[in-house]
Parts: sequence; structure tokens; C-alpha cells
Amino acid sequence: MASESSSRALIVDLCRQFYAQGWVSGTGGGVSVREGDRIYVAPSGVQKERLTEEDLYVLDLAGATLSAPASSGLSPSACTPLFLHAYKLRDAGAVIHSHAMSALLATLIHPNTFECTELEMIKGIAGHGYHDRLVVPIIENTAHECDLADSMADAMRAYPETSAVLVRRHGVYVWGKSWAQAKTHAECYHYLFEAAVRMAELGLDARVAAVPNQSPNPSPNPSPNLSLIEGAKR
Amino acid sequence: MASESSSRALIVDLCRQFYAQGWVSGTGGGVSVREGDRIYVAPSGVQKERLTEEDLYVLDLAGATLSAPASSGLSPSACTPLFLHAYKLRDAGAVIHSHAMSALLATLIHPNTFECTELEMIKGIAGHGYHDRLVVPIIENTAHECDLADSMADAMRAYPETSAVLVRRHGVYVWGKSWAQAKTHAECYHYLFEAAVRMAELGLDARVAAVPNQSPNPSPNPSPNLSLIEGAKR
Amino acid sequence: MASESSSRALIVDLCRQFYAQGWVSGTGGGVSVREGDRIYVAPSGVQKERLTEEDLYVLDLAGATLSAPASSGLSPSACTPLFLHAYKLRDAGAVIHSHAMSALLATLIHPNTFECTELEMIKGIAGHGYHDRLVVPIIENTAHECDLADSMADAMRAYPETSAVLVRRHGVYVWGKSWAQAKTHAECYHYLFEAAVRMAELGLDARVAAVPNQSPNPSPNPSPNLSLIEGAKR
Amino acid sequence: MASESSSRALIVDLCRQFYAQGWVSGTGGGVSVREGDRIYVAPSGVQKERLTEEDLYVLDLAGATLSAPASSGLSPSACTPLFLHAYKLRDAGAVIHSHAMSALLATLIHPNTFECTELEMIKGIAGHGYHDRLVVPIIENTAHECDLADSMADAMRAYPETSAVLVRRHGVYVWGKSWAQAKTHAECYHYLFEAAVRMAELGLDARVAAVPNQSPNPSPNPSPNLSLIEGAKR
Repeated sequence: MASESSSRALIVDLCRQFYAQGWVSGTGGGVSVREGDRIYVAPSGVQKERLTEEDLYVLDLAGATLSAPASSGLSPSACTPLFLHAYKLRDAGAVIHSHAMSALLATLIHPNTFECTELEMIKGIAGHGYHDRLVVPIIENTAHECDLADSMADAMRAYPETSAVLVRRHGVYVWGKSWAQAKTHAECYHYLFEAAVRMAELGLDARVAAVPNQSPNPSPNPSPNLSLIEGAKR
Repeated sequence: MASESSSRALIVDLCRQFYAQGWVSGTGGGVSVREGDRIYVAPSGVQKERLTEEDLYVLDLAGATLSAPASSGLSPSACTPLFLHAYKLRDAGAVIHSHAMSALLATLIHPNTFECTELEMIKGIAGHGYHDRLVVPIIENTAHECDLADSMADAMRAYPETSAVLVRRHGVYVWGKSWAQAKTHAECYHYLFEAAVRMAELGLDARVAAVPNQSPNPSPNPSPNLSLIEGAKR
Repeated sequence: MASESSSRALIVDLCRQFYAQGWVSGTGGGVSVREGDRIYVAPSGVQKERLTEEDLYVLDLAGATLSAPASSGLSPSACTPLFLHAYKLRDAGAVIHSHAMSALLATLIHPNTFECTELEMIKGIAGHGYHDRLVVPIIENTAHECDLADSMADAMRAYPETSAVLVRRHGVYVWGKSWAQAKTHAECYHYLFEAAVRMAELGLDARVAAVPNQSPNPSPNPSPNLSLIEGAKR
Repeated sequence: MASESSSRALIVDLCRQFYAQGWVSGTGGGVSVREGDRIYVAPSGVQKERLTEEDLYVLDLAGATLSAPASSGLSPSACTPLFLHAYKLRDAGAVIHSHAMSALLATLIHPNTFECTELEMIKGIAGHGYHDRLVVPIIENTAHECDLADSMADAMRAYPETSAVLVRRHGVYVWGKSWAQAKTHAECYHYLFEAAVRMAELGLDARVAAVPNQSPNPSPNPSPNLSLIEGAKR
């Protein structure tokens, strides 16, 4: 079917693009697209920029395999239980899991939630305006990816406005109603993570709103405004 | 017409290039080209690296739609009123709107104007020499892009030498007499924004001119020389 | 033979990819693949992104030349003795030598071993879990690449868990059972090097594990947590 | 002639590559190749990634035009007098002029000469070993590129070991016996500039050699080890 074929081609194309952007290196990270009741996911542990359409799994919404690649020795992405939560709890059309450096660092500069406000790209996240506070829950990482599923579900329920969940010292899951919205969300979130980290390096705090008409105030000795967390503090 | 076709092809090509450079991610930013009295702009909210020639709007200089893409549910870029100001107040041939990280950060290290001097790339901006002070006005961001139009027009009038207006916590608008000059301007401005930010990270101030024949003076404890602004200071 | 042809094509392809990632610029760095008892290596001092299949040497496991490129004036990569150690001491299927900036800087922030823990990408290194401490030996650089061979062999014996050896002020050697594992290892190691360096820039130490449930603790004046080494300290 | 055709194709290819690496943006920077007594250069002020073979000038070693592009309104690169110095004083086969951010910043962290030692990539510069001190003269920038020619010639005579001259707050000129050596030199110099800048950001000084067997010495409060120069100091 054209539709089946185009979902496969889309995932292959997005994986190449995300690899080039540093989101899915080292076989980490991934992407999944839903087409009605069919979920497309890549196998676990494959090089994302070399994926082919034949390598994909097709699952149902309960996670059962409808179709598997011919290659032996593979299994569906370890992210699958987390992808399924986004489909079931949020009616997502696609989910992106990234190991981008900006996502990793974003989990190290803020405590339980990543927050920022008054940055234009916040408007790229569904339901958010420029003056809103963007809040992304950060869940603690676990030894095995599947063990993240419960805390991700909890975070999705506790933060109904979010379209992403950060995983401490690991990366981020981002979703959207369609693959295009998931990708736009992912680009905006990664931009905001990087902005907050670079602001921290300049001694600025992305969580603090701009104060209109306040005159500039040179800081003689700025230093990164970090909330050092979880034993990583010096 | 060949000309019409080439403007469309040009915008598609530039959007791919600007996406790769990080100027127009998350459907943000954009580019517009003028051909006589006809303005070409992309729709609002589309993925810039996947734009096709058929997706473009053609407007007149008053902003009225002369031709629209067949796809339903679209509208011309939210930047359109700002693009029109550059066409009407500055006789621009093309306008580029970028959300580059360097442009965002440039609005956070200087107060009401971004300034630098004695950096070679300043010569790439029309009307400027190496020893000149490059001054780029920074206007305050608003909740809706269209509400920036008046303050952008004010800035264009107040700073007749500038070929760019920065928008605080948002990005930059850059224009030129032709698409080639607009692109060259944009590359030079982005380079200068990045240079000033990296200089700040090294404890140097891009606003200060070089003093010839002054011997080097080691600084025992340099720190970023920032004018922290607008409530973002610690 | 198909197999011979595919190893040559693979090396050419990987060299282009690694060049684009900044691992093998300035003719530095390289990659070698083993096919049974045959070792494929590039010549010394060639531009990696312009390599062709005809440029490669084929050696046996003792380093004797089985086949040489027609071009005169070339010799096998100066890395060859180090590649052979990985093949003989570790039964590697491929070895990657990178001069990436992240690998260079990683040798400057830690003393005798590069170490990190509780970063998701550690799981990409064979034999390591999320909570494990990843330890990469750092050997001191020498004037001639071939003189690194003995200390690299020593490091391989002293650190049986490692799949990489860093060379101070130089770069890194990474290997794996297959070319795919070597490449995955290299991507994960480079990611972890970059993460540790960027954490240092933020005042964080990649060697320190997360402490669950500890509340965030703002640091008023963080500064890079470096172990300055080898005379480079101020 | 094949040779003429291949020099033209080479320059076009290198310009695209250097543009992608950030060396020749905003129409700045450039490259020239010599073929016997014929010098190929690009016109002044053109977009380097869109250059075609027909756009090039051919000059003799005295700088007289042998062949010009058909396009009107162009003139040979403003770098031409500087390129000619490298051909005449150093018997260069090719010269690269870059505005890379790393070259610009390298001129801001060291006073009259950029220096580094004991970094592997130093070996990529002709005549230099790992333990040597690499010294690159920095000349002061001028309002017009042609006015740099005399001080560049002076620097070439004063530093006979160098294959590059940095221009303060501007960029770098790099040459080699052949186009391949010029390109390898340029890649190594840019790598070393970036390494020294990132080391400065980590509080390390690229001018200081490693001291073998010295135990690591944590620095409680490192800060960039800059020689702030020329009025840019705080």
C-alpha cells in the first residue's frame, strides 16, 4: 500500500536527518510513526543512518508484532514501551527519542523540571505562547530502558501540557499529533535546551522572564547560574 | 515565466540551505524575495527544508494575495508584515528571518543595540568599513509576530544605516537590495553575532576597538564581560 | 571477490563519514577493517574524504603487504602497528583512529584515565551498563606514531574491559568485533568525551554519579571542575 | 586543456567544501591555485558555494589578467596581492584565505604570535614535529585588504618556518607546495586554533608543554588563561 510504503520511507528519511543532527548516534535514540492502529518502529541497536525500509517492525497498539524484518537476531527498539505510552495516553501520531547533547545537558542544569520562558521558539510547542512558562518533566534514568515506562506514564499524567519527557543523564522523548508536529516539537525543544545551556554558560538563567524597560546592568563576575543536582555538584 | 520559476526555485533552495545552518528550524524563520511588485513568501508553520515551489504565496506590495498554494489550511508567513516593511521602507530585494542561536544569544549580551567594531566581516555589511561601529537595533519581542511590525518600522527609521533588526529573545530580520546581498548580509551578521558571543565567553568585549601597539596584558581572572539585561541577570 | 570489494567500499564510505564528523581532518586519523586474515588500511598522509578503493593497502596479520596501491610514493598508515595490536590482542574486526576535538580535550581534563558514569551512552560500549564506571586509559603521546605501539599494548592488557585507548594531546583508538561495533563504539565514546568536556565547562564532573532524591543545590560560583595535568595548569 | 579544466574544477570544489566548513561565508575568504605560471583566483565578493568554473580569473605571477570571466562588474579577489606573495616568496602551489571563527578567535587569545606545542596535529604542518613549538605570526588588520600585503611579506620573511599568517580580528592565510598540502595545512591550523581556544575556555594554555609524570593537580577555580590584547581586555 502507498500509505504503508510512505511510512517506511518517512522513518528511513527522518533517521538519516536525525543522525546528521546528532540525535541518534551510537545506535541510540529512534523514531516511531503510527498509521491508524499500526505502529512502525526500527529494530534495537541498529545504525540509524543506514536503516532501510525493510528493517522496520510493524506492531499493533498493544505492542504485538504484526510484521518483522527478515534479518535474524533483531528485536524491536527497546524504546517501544515508551513509544506506546505516547500513542495510548496522548494519542500521538509519532514519537521521537533523542540522545542529543543539548537534551542530556538540559537535564543537568535544572532539578526536577526543565523550565524556560520568553524565548520565541516556545511558541512552536502546541498550547504555548511566548510569555508562557515551558515545563518539561525530568524523570530519573534506569539501568534498562523498559523500566522507564512507568515513570514516563506518571510524568505524562502529571504534566498534561507537555509534549516531551526528559530522562536524566540520557535524553528526551518528544511526540506530536502527526509526524510533522512531532518533528517540529523536537526541533523546538532541542533549540530551547541548547539555548538554556548556552545561557547558563554566559551566566544567564532561561527560567527568568525578561523585565521590560529595565536598563542594562553589567555583571562584574558572572558565572554559570546552575542548580547543580544529584551529586554532580562539586 | 522563467523569472517567476527562478524566484520559486531560489526560495526553496535557500530554505534548505538556511535549515542546514540552523536558521529556520522548528518551522520558525523564513525568507521572502521580491520580483518587481511581486513578493514571494512561504506559508506559515511549514518545515522549511521540505518546502516545494508549489507551496509559495505571491503577494503584492500591500500584502494582498496574488496567488496561493493549492494546499488548504495554510496562510502566508506570519512574518509577512515585517517583510513588507523592509520592501517598502528600505526598497529591499529580499528579506531573511532567522532564529539562529547566535542571533538569540546576541540579544542577551547587549542592551538596546548589538554593537561591535574592528572585525573584518563588518565590511560585508553595505556602507560599513573595518573601523566603523556596527550597530544593530534590538526591539523587544511580542506575543504575536505581527505586533512587531510597528517597532521594526521605528527601528528602521531610527537606524538608517542598519540592514538588520534583532528581536530580543527571538532572532533577527536581515535584508538587502538583492537576494544575494540579503544572503551575504545574513551570513556576515550571523558570523558577527557568534563572534561577539564567543568573545564574551572568553571575557572579551566585541564593542571595544583594538588599540594598536598595546602590549598584551594577561588577565588573571577574566570572566564573561556581559551586560546582563532585562531581568535575566543573576 | 564481492567481499574484498565490499571492504574497500566500506572503508571509503566510512572515511567520508568520519571526515564530515571532524574525526580525520588534516590527513590525520584513519580506519582499518579486517576480513579473515586480511587487513585493509589506507595509505599514510592522504586526504580521507577523497580516498578511493584503489588507494588501499592489504596486509596480513603480521603487517606484511599483500597488495599495494599503484600510486607511487605511498606507504601504509603510520597507525598500522597500533591497528595490528587491536587485531591480535583483542580479536578486533575493525579499528578507528580519531583526532576529534572531543577526544583531544578529554585527555586534558582527566589525569591517567578518562572516566565517567551514569550517562546513557555508556550502555553503547560492550560489557557496560548505565551504572558502571567507564574507564578509558590515556597513554602519553610520542614524537612518532609507531612508538605508541608498546604503551598501547600495555594499556590493552591493563584494562581488559576497554574498547578504546586515548592518546594524550592526540586522539583515540577505538575497536570492535565488527566494523559496525567499532563504529558504534566510536560514536558512543566521542559522545561521552564531548559530554564530559561540556559538563566541565558547566562546572560539573562526569566522574561523579547521580545521587537519587537529592534536592537541587544551587552553586553560587561554579567553575570548571578540572584536574589540570601535565604542566598545562596555570 | 585537461590541466586548465581540472584547476578550475578543483577551485569550485574546494570553495563548496570550505563554505560548508565555515571558512568562506559572507563572500569572505577564498582560494587560489597555481599551475606553472598561471594563477587561478575567484572574483571579489562572490558567494563561494555557488561559484562556477566560468567565474574564475587567470592571472600571471605579476598579477596581470590573462583571462577574465564573461560576467561584467567583477574584479579579481581583493586577496590577490596576498596570494601573489605566497607564490613568489614561498613558491606556493596554492593559497587558502579563511575567515573561520577559530582563526578569528585565535588572534584574540595570543599577542603577536599564535603559539602552541605538543598537540599531535602540529605534525601536519611541514617541518614540524610533535615537540616543536608552532609559531604563527599575527599581523594587524587594515581597512583595505590590499594594505595587508606589505606586513604579510614582512611576516613571511621574519618567520621562514611558518606556512600561515594570521590577520588580527580577520582570519588567516595558509599555503602549501601543492593544493593538497595547502588544504592539509589549513585543516591542521584550523584544528589547532580551535583546540587552543577551547583549551582557553577550560582554563588551559596551549602554549605550555606537557610535563611527563606530573601528577594531576586539581585547580579549584580555573579561568580562561588569556593574554587579553589590544584594548579588548576588560
